[in-house]
Amino acid sequence: MCEANAYMIEGDDRRLVMESVDTIEPEGDGLRLVNIFGEQKFLRARIQSLSLVENRVLLIKTA
Amino acid sequence: MCEANAYMIEGDDRRLVMESVDTIEPEGDGLRLVNIFGEQKFLRARIQSLSLVENRVLLIKTA
Repeated sequence: MCEANAYMIEGDDRRLVMESVDTIEPEGDGLRLVNIFGEQKFLRARIQSLSLVENRVLLIKTA
Repeated sequence: MCEANAYMIEGDDRRLVMESVDTIEPEGDGLRLVNIFGEQKFLRARIQSLSLVENRVLLIKTA
């Protein structure tokens, strides 16, 4: 099993927005995140970077 | 251990560009991919979507 925690970059900080993320897909002007429990979240953001070995996805807000 | 295969979307097809990817980070006008063996690749692309349970990262070319 492989999943990651998604963090939103906010200035110098990172805010955890979803744990155990499975899929991230573009939708409209943002991203739809779905975790391994089927919970969903829509964010006006794009994927900035990944570190899969560290189970980390960084997101950055879009204007 | 958690890593994924990175595919470039090319029309209706997906071309495998790197296996066992660990990190993907923005660099200049593209992305730097690094796999778990330390091999690196630079691509003019952005991250389109992720499916971590399926160990798949989809990339799309930037203009």
